[in-house]
Amino acid sequence: MRGDGLAGGEGGADRLGELIPAALRGMAAGIAERGGPVPAGGPAAVAAALVAERGELVSEKQGSNPVSHSRPAAAAGNGSLPRRGIGAEAALEELSRLLAAGSADPADPACAAHLHCPPLAVAVAADVVASALNPSMDSWDQAPVASELEREFTAGIARLCYPAAETPDAVVTTGGTESNLLGLLLARERDPGVRPVCGANAHHSVARAAWLLGLPAPVVVPCEGDRLLPDALAEVVTPRSVVVATAGTTNTGALDPLPEIAAVCRRAGARLHVDAAYGGMALCSDALKAKLAGLALADSVALDLHKFGWQPVAAGLFAAREAADLGALTVRAEYLNAGDDTEAGLPDLLGRSIRTSRRPDAFRMAVTVHALGTDGLGALVERCCATAAEVATLVENHPGLRLWGAPELSTVVLRPVVADETGDDELVARVRRALLEAGTAVIGRATLPTGPGGTDQLWLKLTLLHPHTTGDDYGPLLDRIAATAGAELVAGRESPVAS
Amino acid sequence: MRGDGLAGGEGGADRLGELIPAALRGMAAGIAERGGPVPAGGPAAVAAALVAERGELVSEKQGSNPVSHSRPAAAAGNGSLPRRGIGAEAALEELSRLLAAGSADPADPACAAHLHCPPLAVAVAADVVASALNPSMDSWDQAPVASELEREFTAGIARLCYPAAETPDAVVTTGGTESNLLGLLLARERDPGVRPVCGANAHHSVARAAWLLGLPAPVVVPCEGDRLLPDALAEVVTPRSVVVATAGTTNTGALDPLPEIAAVCRRAGARLHVDAAYGGMALCSDALKAKLAGLALADSVALDLHKFGWQPVAAGLFAAREAADLGALTVRAEYLNAGDDTEAGLPDLLGRSIRTSRRPDAFRMAVTVHALGTDGLGALVERCCATAAEVATLVENHPGLRLWGAPELSTVVLRPVVADETGDDELVARVRRALLEAGTAVIGRATLPTGPGGTDQLWLKLTLLHPHTTGDDYGPLLDRIAATAGAELVAGRESPVAS
Repeated sequence: MRGDGLAGGEGGADRLGELIPAALRGMAAGIAERGGPVPAGGPAAVAAALVAERGELVSEKQGSNPVSHSRPAAAAGNGSLPRRGIGAEAALEELSRLLAAGSADPADPACAAHLHCPPLAVAVAADVVASALNPSMDSWDQAPVASELEREFTAGIARLCYPAAETPDAVVTTGGTESNLLGLLLARERDPGVRPVCGANAHHSVARAAWLLGLPAPVVVPCEGDRLLPDALAEVVTPRSVVVATAGTTNTGALDPLPEIAAVCRRAGARLHVDAAYGGMALCSDALKAKLAGLALADSVALDLHKFGWQPVAAGLFAAREAADLGALTVRAEYLNAGDDTEAGLPDLLGRSIRTSRRPDAFRMAVTVHALGTDGLGALVERCCATAAEVATLVENHPGLRLWGAPELSTVVLRPVVADETGDDELVARVRRALLEAGTAVIGRATLPTGPGGTDQLWLKLTLLHPHTTGDDYGPLLDRIAATAGAELVAGRESPVAS
Repeated sequence: MRGDGLAGGEGGADRLGELIPAALRGMAAGIAERGGPVPAGGPAAVAAALVAERGELVSEKQGSNPVSHSRPAAAAGNGSLPRRGIGAEAALEELSRLLAAGSADPADPACAAHLHCPPLAVAVAADVVASALNPSMDSWDQAPVASELEREFTAGIARLCYPAAETPDAVVTTGGTESNLLGLLLARERDPGVRPVCGANAHHSVARAAWLLGLPAPVVVPCEGDRLLPDALAEVVTPRSVVVATAGTTNTGALDPLPEIAAVCRRAGARLHVDAAYGGMALCSDALKAKLAGLALADSVALDLHKFGWQPVAAGLFAAREAADLGALTVRAEYLNAGDDTEAGLPDLLGRSIRTSRRPDAFRMAVTVHALGTDGLGALVERCCATAAEVATLVENHPGLRLWGAPELSTVVLRPVVADETGDDELVARVRRALLEAGTAVIGRATLPTGPGGTDQLWLKLTLLHPHTTGDDYGPLLDRIAATAGAELVAGRESPVAS
C-alpha cells in the first residue's frame, strides 16, 4: 500500500484491517525487545539508540543509493523531515517497534511513578473507530451522532458528580490542567477581580491557569498531612475568592476535607472548584465514594479518566453544578454556529470547549463504561486502592524503608531509612534515577514538609494504577529500592559528586 | 473478554488483535447502513435513532429482566451511566456501528463543509500503538523514546517553516486554536501591554485567545478579497502590537500578503504570528510553496496536520523562529521536572506545552511523514488544490451558480444565482440545511462583504480535503445545490416561515 489510503468511507475498515496488524507486530516486537518496564541506559542511551536505528533504516532502505533524498536528512539529524516515504507497512512496523522498545510501559507493574495508567484494550480499540471517522466536536455537521453520544456521556458524568443537582452539566477537556483552568475561568467571568486560593498541596496547573488567565497568583493555604487546613482557609478566603481544593493530591493521593472546605466557602460567599482528577472516579465504588463526600457542594469539578478510568491520554472532564455557568464559554463563529442555523435546530457545540477542532474522546470513554459499567470501573479502582494498602503494609514491615502514611487512594509514599540516618535527600533522588537508568523500575518522587521544623524532605512514591496487581507484585521492587539506597549510599561516600 | 484486559504489556497486542476486529465490524456495518455522507433527517432524527437503539439494546441484553440495574438508566435518558457492563466486544461492535451510521464521514466527497479531513489509514493505525503504550509527554520517564521522536519531528516542522533560521523550534498543540493562543501568549510574556491586531478574515480563535489571556480584544483591520490590507494594517500597528496574519482563511482559503505584512510589522517593531493552520502544509509542495513566501519572516506560525496532513484530530503544531521564545512556557513541578533531575540529564518536557498529561500526537504524524515523505504529502495537497480549481471552473460554467473567486487553496465559494436574483440570503442558509437534512451533502457557509456597499452576504463553500477526487466527483453535487436552491425558492414563496 502506498500509504495514502483512507481510514474512513467504503473500504476504510478493510484498509485498517490490513495496516493495524503491521503496527501491532512492531509493537509486540518492541515490547519483547525492551523486556522490562523502561529501556535501560537513560536519556543518552535512548537518544543514541534512535540515531543508530535511523542509520540502519536508511542504509537498509536506500540500498546502493546513499545520496538519495529520501532519508539522509533525518538520519543526519539536521532536522529535516524525509522527502520520500518508505510506505505505510514499513513505517508502521519500524516506528511502532521503536516506540514500544523505548517506552515506559504502565502495563508493567514496576512502572509506577505517575498518574499514568495502562489503558484498557477496549478503550484503545474504540479509539480506532473515532480516529477513522474523525468526528470533530466543534459543529453538529462534523459530529452528528458523536455529539449526541458525548452529551449522553457527559450528562452521566455530571450526574455522577452531582446526584441531586437540578441542572448539572459536564464537558470534555484535555485533562485536569484544562479542567482546572475552566474552574478559574468560570469564576473570572463572574468576577474579573477574582483571586484564586488553593492549598500548598494543589497541582501546579492551578497556578499556571491563573498565570494564563491573567489572574493574580493563587493565595497558598498551608496543609497538614498533605490536606488543606479549613481553619487556615477561613483566614484568607473572601467573597472574591475562587478556592481550589484537591480530591487526591499528586504527591500522596490525600483528599482535602471537602465538607469543611465547602462550609468555609459558603460562609464567605466564595466559589469552590475541586480538582478530583485523581480521586473522582472513586465515585464509581460504593465502598470508596464516601471519601468524596462534599464533592457535590463544589461549583465545579475536574475529573480524569486517563487516571482511574484506564483511558489513553486524554480523557479529561469538567463538571459544573449549574449548567448555566458553562455559558461563559459561549462563542460565535458564523461558519460553525450561525444564529439562523442554531434557530433552525442545529445544536451549537462550539461553547462546549475552549478548543475548536476537538477529538471525540467521549466515544472511547462511553464504550468503556458500556463495556464494564461503572460497577466494573469501581471494582478496578478498589483493586488499585487495596493493592496500595497491601504495599503500605509491606513498607511498614520493611527494615530498609519508612512509610509516609496510610494511603488514601493508590499512592504509597516511602523513604529509604538510610536517607533518614544520613539526612541525605539527594540520595533519595539518586535511587529513583538509578532504578530508571538500570531499566528496572520507574518510581516517582514527592517533596513533603516532613523535615525538622516543617522543612521539605524528598520521598519516593509508587502510584499504583495497574488494576490487575496485588501487594505481592511489589515486594521485589521494595527490596530493590532499599538495596539501591544502600548502594547509592556507598557510591555517594566513595564519590560525592557521582551521578 | 470481560473488558478489563490491558492494551499494553505482554499480551497487549494479542488483546488488541482480538478486539479491534469487533470495532471494525461495527464500523463497516454502520457505514453501509448510512449509505451517504451523513445520516438523513437532521439532529432530531439522529437523536431519536440513538434513543431507539438504546431501547433495543436494553431489551436484547436484558432479556427477561427488565428491572435489572444494568442499562435502564441510560435507556430512560435520565442521565445516569450504566452500572453494569455488556462486555468489551458487544460494546465495541454496537457503539462503533452507531458512531459510523451516525457520522458525517469526510471520506465521502460530498462531505465537504469544513476543514475536516478524511484521515489516512496509516495515521489511524499508528495511533493504536500510541494509545496502547500511552506515553504521556509531560516527563521523560513517561515517554522516553516518544519524547525523542517528538523532538525529531518538531525539529523537522520547525525547519520546514523556517529553512534559514538559526534556532527554530516547534511544539505540538491541540490545533490552530491553541497555536494561536500560544502566538499571543508569547507576545504577552514579552510585553504585558501587548495588543492583538488581526484581519477581519482571521479565525475566531484569535479573539477568543485574547479573551482567555486577559488581553484587549483585537484591533480588526479591513480586508479586500478576504486578504488583510497591509496599508490599513500600517495605520494601526504599533511597537506594542502582535499582528496575526492568516495563510489560508477559513472562509475562502485566501492567503494574506505575508511579505508586505511582515515589512509593516518590521518597520513598526511589532511581533507577527501567522495562522497557517490551513495553508501551512503547502510548504511540502514545490509547486505551491511560493504561496507561503514570507512565512519565515513571522515570529511564530500555527500549522494543523489534521487539515492538509490527513491526521485524525488533533494534530496541531506551533513553530517559533527563535527557540528561546518558547521559554515563556517554562514551569516547574517537583514531581515532573525537579531541578536536580534536570541537572542529572533528564530532559524537561513540561515547558513544551500548556497542557500537562499529553498524548503523543507527534507519533502518528511522524509515522505518516515517514510513510509518504513530505513529497507524498505535498502531492496530496496539490491534488486537493487542483480539484478545487476544476470545481471552480464547473461553478463558473454552471448556469445556476456564481463563483466568489478563483480558489487559492482548496476552498470553492459559490452562491446560487437565485439568491442574487431575489437578494435572499436566508435562502442560501436553507439550501445548506436542506442538503444536510436530506443526508445528501455536507457543505459549508461563509459570510463575506460582497453585498451592496460592502454589506455581508451569505455564500456556500466546499472545502475540499479529500485527496483522491477530481472535479468530476463534484459535478452532481453542484447540480444538486442549484436544484435545491430552486426548490427552496419555491418553498419559501409558498410558506415564508418554512424551515
